[in-house]
Amino acid sequence: MVTTASGTGRERTRERLLHAAYEVFAEVGPDAASVEAICERAGFTRGAFYSNFSTKDALFLDMMRVITEGKLASVTRNIEVMRTRGDVLMPAEIMQRILEGTIDDAPGVVLMSELRLRAMRDDDTAMAFRTWERDLHARVAGIVDVLVDTYGLRLRLPAEDVARVVLEVWEAALNTAVIDRLPYEQLQTLAATRAQKIAFTLVEFPEEPARPQ
Amino acid sequence: MVTTASGTGRERTRERLLHAAYEVFAEVGPDAASVEAICERAGFTRGAFYSNFSTKDALFLDMMRVITEGKLASVTRNIEVMRTRGDVLMPAEIMQRILEGTIDDAPGVVLMSELRLRAMRDDDTAMAFRTWERDLHARVAGIVDVLVDTYGLRLRLPAEDVARVVLEVWEAALNTAVIDRLPYEQLQTLAATRAQKIAFTLVEFPEEPARPQ
Repeated sequence: MVTTASGTGRERTRERLLHAAYEVFAEVGPDAASVEAICERAGFTRGAFYSNFSTKDALFLDMMRVITEGKLASVTRNIEVMRTRGDVLMPAEIMQRILEGTIDDAPGVVLMSELRLRAMRDDDTAMAFRTWERDLHARVAGIVDVLVDTYGLRLRLPAEDVARVVLEVWEAALNTAVIDRLPYEQLQTLAATRAQKIAFTLVEFPEEPARPQ
Repeated sequence: MVTTASGTGRERTRERLLHAAYEVFAEVGPDAASVEAICERAGFTRGAFYSNFSTKDALFLDMMRVITEGKLASVTRNIEVMRTRGDVLMPAEIMQRILEGTIDDAPGVVLMSELRLRAMRDDDTAMAFRTWERDLHARVAGIVDVLVDTYGLRLRLPAEDVARVVLEVWEAALNTAVIDRLPYEQLQTLAATRAQKIAFTLVEFPEEPARPQ
């Protein structure tokens, strides 16, 4: 589908700026990742930047939203595929299938820590961060609800607590992996292993391999 | 007890520098909390600073160790008192008694986030941070073991996982409280409530009020 609507051009500009910002951020960190450096990488003027983002922080928050959306879309798609195919799976396989495509890398982890710290100091960032985090928790709780219905699970805590704790353990594992300078593959494995371990403790899985209901 | 041994004088200088650094840090943040500002507050020269700490980061890491020691000492003392008195307690009371005196405030939470982020970027900070965190986890796991013995508990995960998850949930709650700009009392309540909730899920408490064994 080819479209030349101005909205789409604007969307592409945003995407290129976000992509460039992520690269520059990953290479030099958030302070050195200046608006100038981001624009140069993307091949745009500062004018293009400021017609899309009010500040560099606004861009970083938007980047986090885009990353989150991508992960949530993967998870939702994975569950839908499992449900449609009616696969009979062991709990560990279910978790593995769910998490497929939810990729975290070291720059993403550092970016998240940066934003959290900025939110502690700056009121505008705090407001945007809160909205983002609450939305994320609510949506993951929704995913937990779908899994409960699909596989007939029993939770030891309310769905929103299960969602929050799994996300917290996941993020803590990623932080540890980055501080331990683990390579990409091991970072993924550590986060997935710890998320699974806590999920299996908070959720009573059926004794038998689970079949979608 | 009055002593004029040089070791003690040096210890006092360290303590005054740490105290001053915490105050300055809490007031202006880690970047503006310069070595100069810290020395001025403590009433020492830069020479006194650098004979105690190699860098500002070294001082912050030491501060975190001192804070951790204080909390662990409180917890250990609280458990010892409960055990000695043989109090028969409900699980919620046990948790509350254990956590008494383990005070976190917003500057401490921001300091922790700062250090974690620096550890992601700087190799020396990473090494010190890792050592500190592993020691903390091992010691809290030891406390979990003592509680298991004392109250005849059953754990749903190994003690070291229970310790890690409770600490991770605790820290995440503190981060949220700071980003939500919660006042001191509510910050304490949120962290304690969430730590209790996850602890009660990872630990099977006896049906009856627990008596030390």
